[in-house]
Amino acid sequence: MSNGDVFVGEVIGTAILILFGAGVCAAVTLNHSKAKASGWIVISFGWGMAVLAGAYTAAPLSGGHLNPAVTVGIAVDTGEWGQVWLYVLGQMAGAMLGAVLAYLVYYAQFAANRDEETALPTLGIFSTIPEIRSPVANLVTEIIATVGLVLPVLAFGMTQGLGESGTQVLIVALLVVGIGLSLGGPTGYAINPARDLGPRLVHAVLPIPNKGTSDWGYAWVPVAGPLIGGALSGLIYNTAF
Amino acid sequence: MSNGDVFVGEVIGTAILILFGAGVCAAVTLNHSKAKASGWIVISFGWGMAVLAGAYTAAPLSGGHLNPAVTVGIAVDTGEWGQVWLYVLGQMAGAMLGAVLAYLVYYAQFAANRDEETALPTLGIFSTIPEIRSPVANLVTEIIATVGLVLPVLAFGMTQGLGESGTQVLIVALLVVGIGLSLGGPTGYAINPARDLGPRLVHAVLPIPNKGTSDWGYAWVPVAGPLIGGALSGLIYNTAF
Amino acid sequence: MSNGDVFVGEVIGTAILILFGAGVCAAVTLNHSKAKASGWIVISFGWGMAVLAGAYTAAPLSGGHLNPAVTVGIAVDTGEWGQVWLYVLGQMAGAMLGAVLAYLVYYAQFAANRDEETALPTLGIFSTIPEIRSPVANLVTEIIATVGLVLPVLAFGMTQGLGESGTQVLIVALLVVGIGLSLGGPTGYAINPARDLGPRLVHAVLPIPNKGTSDWGYAWVPVAGPLIGGALSGLIYNTAF
Amino acid sequence: MSNGDVFVGEVIGTAILILFGAGVCAAVTLNHSKAKASGWIVISFGWGMAVLAGAYTAAPLSGGHLNPAVTVGIAVDTGEWGQVWLYVLGQMAGAMLGAVLAYLVYYAQFAANRDEETALPTLGIFSTIPEIRSPVANLVTEIIATVGLVLPVLAFGMTQGLGESGTQVLIVALLVVGIGLSLGGPTGYAINPARDLGPRLVHAVLPIPNKGTSDWGYAWVPVAGPLIGGALSGLIYNTAF
Repeated sequence: MSNGDVFVGEVIGTAILILFGAGVCAAVTLNHSKAKASGWIVISFGWGMAVLAGAYTAAPLSGGHLNPAVTVGIAVDTGEWGQVWLYVLGQMAGAMLGAVLAYLVYYAQFAANRDEETALPTLGIFSTIPEIRSPVANLVTEIIATVGLVLPVLAFGMTQGLGESGTQVLIVALLVVGIGLSLGGPTGYAINPARDLGPRLVHAVLPIPNKGTSDWGYAWVPVAGPLIGGALSGLIYNTAF
Repeated sequence: MSNGDVFVGEVIGTAILILFGAGVCAAVTLNHSKAKASGWIVISFGWGMAVLAGAYTAAPLSGGHLNPAVTVGIAVDTGEWGQVWLYVLGQMAGAMLGAVLAYLVYYAQFAANRDEETALPTLGIFSTIPEIRSPVANLVTEIIATVGLVLPVLAFGMTQGLGESGTQVLIVALLVVGIGLSLGGPTGYAINPARDLGPRLVHAVLPIPNKGTSDWGYAWVPVAGPLIGGALSGLIYNTAF
Repeated sequence: MSNGDVFVGEVIGTAILILFGAGVCAAVTLNHSKAKASGWIVISFGWGMAVLAGAYTAAPLSGGHLNPAVTVGIAVDTGEWGQVWLYVLGQMAGAMLGAVLAYLVYYAQFAANRDEETALPTLGIFSTIPEIRSPVANLVTEIIATVGLVLPVLAFGMTQGLGESGTQVLIVALLVVGIGLSLGGPTGYAINPARDLGPRLVHAVLPIPNKGTSDWGYAWVPVAGPLIGGALSGLIYNTAF
Repeated sequence: MSNGDVFVGEVIGTAILILFGAGVCAAVTLNHSKAKASGWIVISFGWGMAVLAGAYTAAPLSGGHLNPAVTVGIAVDTGEWGQVWLYVLGQMAGAMLGAVLAYLVYYAQFAANRDEETALPTLGIFSTIPEIRSPVANLVTEIIATVGLVLPVLAFGMTQGLGESGTQVLIVALLVVGIGLSLGGPTGYAINPARDLGPRLVHAVLPIPNKGTSDWGYAWVPVAGPLIGGALSGLIYNTAF
């Protein structure tokens, strides 16, 4: 695919991914939202359908990776690293754009957070926060959860043409629903460095009232874990399949 | 497609869309309903499967737009405006018919609303109501949420033949599930002028006991926002893809 | 299709439909069930996946109607009535077999219903009960909800080959999820005479402790409503499409 | 398929199945999990998407049985028993590996179970526990629920090429969602000897604080029931179809 298509596809696709993904976290978290406190099934399906929306849009242009862990997993498997930087650049730009769009969709709700008495911390809308802070355990969780995404994508999705078949997009979206339901409990399943780091940067600069910490001390885990998990998936796939 | 097929397809398809969509809002809202207070996951899947039911029925006749924002987005992209008025006319007629059908399905429940002590406002079953009334913020929410529907449909659905493939209907239905889960919190996601205005007209004339206001002051937002979002999607698609 | 294939397919398919469908009602209703009180989303997805399981099994043999309303709708549309009696006979036999199987799966839970203090009425596991008893309103609800099933099946499913494509089975299953979510609130959505009458007969004869009434006064509504709705769908399809 | 592909496919696929499946049970059960107490819809979709993830990965190598009951059902139907031992060996090894991986994902949460005051029994994360202990009734439940899985797989999935089509993987995954929703109430639906016995062995040896009993007295039921159900499905399919 051309460099232009790859970059545009990944920017738009990842923007849609994060618009929907940060959107569902805002929907469940913020006061004055119709989906307030609607639970883990809403979060998990919300992020899964976020993948569906983003990949469905980007697939014809860039294949719809939307995730440096996927891009790295494919590169480790195929040995082709030429466009990796372009994919990752587009993913980071798209993730930041998507976080801004989600903020705009929930602008009135974020503005209402200026009421000190009902104000809520907002980082969990943008980025992941572990339930038990334990860097090694959190890293292991993110590595295994990312293998649970990238290895199936390499094993089936890629061999059957991920980019051109709506069915593959649908199955990968439901795979992400499953990762959320099953493996999201400890860390909130970043499984994608761009999904966590891009919105964290946006959270740090947006003028959200009472927004709370951006928690930079944890930020390396949801970057390193998914990258390791993606590379590991490429190695497993190359060896076992 | 012939004018007759377009009109009949859009009337029947949009009627089914609103029958199911207003239906799920009635199911979750009204007293003496088995689904009373069953939450946001039911609302979101209900509207998504409403799209599935309507588009599945209408696709062979009219392509199954069911939404002026989709029709306008396609027209902006392709430059073909000849049948737009016919699509929109069918969508408005179908939306009104569907709202009447949903009223008939829940006739006994609406009748029980005459009990002053347990009476509930009923507009939310037919049309959208923002959680925080702020015209500019509400408009921005509807514009972005509509781009989240129409841009993916243009990018993938249309290029792969939306009207003929069951898989495309399924994916668009799940895309609408995702929009509800993620972007529906602030305004209740009209993302479709006919879906909001048609049932609002029906609400204004139906003899529902204690029905409450039809809230005409807000009615322009869920018409203007989706139309702007649909046109914007056509422009983005034409430029970026 | 041969008479033998039609009969065997409809018996096995409808048995699986009711095994799953009565099963999910038992799961949500009975004491000592892990799914006790898990809500309307579980009921609606349970019945939808019941259609998936039954139709997936029966499709290669009989096309997987599993429902006299579907069979009648197709006959009204095509004018071919020769095998209708065979379909309906298989559907009734299968529905009764499936109700017995669901009873066996939940045998220990039904047995525990002999405790007078925690005993629950059991008819709702087998057959539908309206929230507000109003024959005309209940009939209208069942007619419209059945059109919401049969018209989409005629419009798209049949023209694209319902029996041979897994995608069609999946979409019809999700259509039934949608009918439950949206149109099931007033009467519990029989939308299928065999689904209601067969298990009601089984409920009347099974030795369930404290089983309560089989409510024969209501039994005609979930038979007549779906049959009228199925025939009406055939007429609409023949006229409009 | 080659012996190597069968073994590797079943090990990896079943490991992913149990990683996700035990994972969702951990997510809903353990303290300090974001999905704590999120209910039966999460459990049922979690196990269904576990099948999707595992079968999606293993299908190109081994067909993705992941379950001795499926393997036995196919062998009874086809009469080909040559690779059955290899499938079952791979499934058992994979199930044990998957249980260890799920333990690692939730390592910090398991470690927090050392607090005596909030400690919870952990067997239900790994293996099934009946709500009412009654060996014959529990066995019947597992037999019928397994027929509800294997008979549809034989009837449609296999004839249409389970291993090569993403749609078949998706439908079987949703079939398992349905089995959980409808038939899981009494015993927790093992429907797979490897899914229950492998993780039970792992539970017995892992150093989990306050882990409670591994309940070996019940262990034969979720092995025998599914094997009988699988064989019965092969017989029914051979006779009726």
